[in-house]
Amino acid sequence: MRKSTCKVSVRGYELDSFGHVNNAVYLNYGETAVWNFFHSAGLIDATLGSDLFPVVMESTQRYMHELRLFDEVRIESEFKGSNGLVKYKHLIINESTGLVSCKIKGKIAFVNKERMICDVPDEVLEYLESDTDEH
Amino acid sequence: MRKSTCKVSVRGYELDSFGHVNNAVYLNYGETAVWNFFHSAGLIDATLGSDLFPVVMESTQRYMHELRLFDEVRIESEFKGSNGLVKYKHLIINESTGLVSCKIKGKIAFVNKERMICDVPDEVLEYLESDTDEH
Amino acid sequence: MRKSTCKVSVRGYELDSFGHVNNAVYLNYGETAVWNFFHSAGLIDATLGSDLFPVVMESTQRYMHELRLFDEVRIESEFKGSNGLVKYKHLIINESTGLVSCKIKGKIAFVNKERMICDVPDEVLEYLESDTDEH
Amino acid sequence: MRKSTCKVSVRGYELDSFGHVNNAVYLNYGETAVWNFFHSAGLIDATLGSDLFPVVMESTQRYMHELRLFDEVRIESEFKGSNGLVKYKHLIINESTGLVSCKIKGKIAFVNKERMICDVPDEVLEYLESDTDEH
Repeated sequence: MRKSTCKVSVRGYELDSFGHVNNAVYLNYGETAVWNFFHSAGLIDATLGSDLFPVVMESTQRYMHELRLFDEVRIESEFKGSNGLVKYKHLIINESTGLVSCKIKGKIAFVNKERMICDVPDEVLEYLESDTDEH
Repeated sequence: MRKSTCKVSVRGYELDSFGHVNNAVYLNYGETAVWNFFHSAGLIDATLGSDLFPVVMESTQRYMHELRLFDEVRIESEFKGSNGLVKYKHLIINESTGLVSCKIKGKIAFVNKERMICDVPDEVLEYLESDTDEH
Repeated sequence: MRKSTCKVSVRGYELDSFGHVNNAVYLNYGETAVWNFFHSAGLIDATLGSDLFPVVMESTQRYMHELRLFDEVRIESEFKGSNGLVKYKHLIINESTGLVSCKIKGKIAFVNKERMICDVPDEVLEYLESDTDEH
Repeated sequence: MRKSTCKVSVRGYELDSFGHVNNAVYLNYGETAVWNFFHSAGLIDATLGSDLFPVVMESTQRYMHELRLFDEVRIESEFKGSNGLVKYKHLIINESTGLVSCKIKGKIAFVNKERMICDVPDEVLEYLESDTDEH
């Protein structure tokens, strides 16, 4: 299992007509966390450079406290390989209040150009399983 | 319980760099179905005109088949009142293939301006519970 | 010169915190009109199937009347080939009021994989120049 | 005239099917720069707290070089009050290449709840006209 953290700021156009961040935008934030994780891990080539590409198979969001304009947001993520999928959890945290705004958990599969589900690329799997954070 | 159907077409800017509809956009489609439902039911005043407004508390999406440019999409929805929430299910269906592209289920609460969760407005609840479709 | 018309409905998540369609969304509407035009003209292969792809080089929007939730929108577009570009104009019209909500004019170039600007594909150019509407 | 700078990072979901930032997203970036400017200037109450709110009347974008995943972006903006409007220019710059990716210029008006165009709030105008940067 691997952990990572990334930060985003709420942008004005992400608010909906209720003046808070629209529920779909949390998936954008989560996706940003996933890309940043693959990027910092040096896994972009392994995830995008091959014939495979990652697709979200499932996602569940629990919305707990709204986010508003100019809120600074920290996303704490966990990733692990499991049964041919990458599973992730995100805590989307409002940095000024410390409150968890949204919890996301989801699953990514790797598919080929014919949209067949394939194994998680070895390089990704090895990275996820060799957590050096604990040493 | 109430059912409703609404249609959307995939728009080019909804595709991501993999050439298919981005996972977050399915929440946009689901939200469109919810608004259309309240609108056709004559419940916009009851949902927006009062001091209350609806917020998504929870959503789970299972992504099954991708959607692509120009796909025509039918959203079949079910809504019911339950324990102070409106629960919904959406089937997001590709009309040309007949395949279910995504299943969404979620819960909406009504909150007041102080973001306290309140009862579902009576008018909404009565509408959801008096299903005339079955007569 | 070719004309085309396409329709969209305002979706709830396209509103911003002022309760009207966000200014960036008009570009989404315009892009939808462009794709629909190429699609109905049978030009998708000519625009996407080759090694070239279309990019917006320039766009100007004049915002005149806001659009709101559930507004039905008609986009009246004109396209012409000119100096190696496709030039377009969109009138984004609120169907219930008849008012022009936004005027867009812009230019599309075709670029290759190295992002060099190339000629407009012949098939596209011929279509734009052989306006059968006037016969 | 006032200048300001703000930074954004390209997020994965902002790419379109051509693998680069979609043209509409540049307006999102520009809007982010405007909000950040009002925010750092302490003008949020003056722009949003009154009965007035700002709307974009006109915007022109010239797209020069594409932005791609993970690009770090610097937005250099200029704002001035002029004829009852706030006029702005944004240079959207790719920090790694130093290239200007997009130039935006536009106009904001302040409207009241009846959507009548009103004067720019005094506090905003005074701030724009008393450029302390030059002292």
